Amino acid sequence: MPEALQPRIKVWVEKDGRLVLSDYRVRLLELIAANGSLADAAAAMGLSYRRAWGKIREIEENLGVKLVHSTVGGPGGGATRLTAEGERLVGQYDRFRRELVKDADAEFGRSFRAD
Amino acid sequence: MPEALQPRIKVWVEKDGRLVLSDYRVRLLELIAANGSLADAAAAMGLSYRRAWGKIREIEENLGVKLVHSTVGGPGGGATRLTAEGERLVGQYDRFRRELVKDADAEFGRSFRAD
Repeated sequence: MPEALQPRIKVWVEKDGRLVLSDYRVRLLELIAANGSLADAAAAMGLSYRRAWGKIREIEENLGVKLVHSTVGGPGGGATRLTAEGERLVGQYDRFRRELVKDADAEFGRSFRAD
Repeated sequence: MPEALQPRIKVWVEKDGRLVLSDYRVRLLELIAANGSLADAAAAMGLSYRRAWGKIREIEENLGVKLVHSTVGGPGGGATRLTAEGERLVGQYDRFRRELVKDADAEFGRSFRAD
C-alpha cells in the first residue's frame, strides 16, 4: 500500500506575514518575461489586464522592489519586461520549489517506506 | 530585503490522485489518540461527530486501511482509539512534515540568500 502513496507540496514565500511569491504569481512573471507583454501574459492566464497589473503592483509593494518595467511606443508598440531583480527572484523561487520537490520525495521515502 | 522573506510550505499525501493525509486530517487522528474519543476529538476541531466520523471513513476507504477501532460500553463508556496502522501513519506523516519544514528553510537559504 505505501508504494501507491505520493507526497504533494505547495510552496510560497511571505514577507512580514504577507504572501509575496507563489507558483501562480511566479507564472505570471515568467509569462511576462516570455512574451515581453503584460497583456499577453494576462491573456495566457485568463486574467484581465487590469487584474494582472494589480497583482504585479501588489507583489512589488509587498516586496518593496520593482519587478517589471514598461516601455511605451517604438516600432513594435510598448513592451513590459522583468527588471534584473524580477528575473533574479523568479530564478530563486524556481530553484527553491524544484529542490524542495526533490527533497519531498526523498523525505517521504525515508518517512513512509523505511520500515 | 531577502532576510525578511520566509518560505512557507503545505504538505499532503495522495493515493491514486486522492487526498488521504493532510495536516487537518492527521490532527483529527492525533486528537482521537489523545482523547480516546471521536466525540471529543470532533468537538476540539469544531466538527460534528457525524462529520468527523465521515472524514475518518473517507481516509480509511481511500487508504484501504483501518485507522481507528471503537469499543462499546464498559465502566467508562465506549472509546475510539487508533489502530497500530493508524498510529504508524500519523508518526510517518509527522516526521515527513517536520523534516520537510527543515528542508524548506535550508533550501530557501541556498536559493534566496546565497548571492
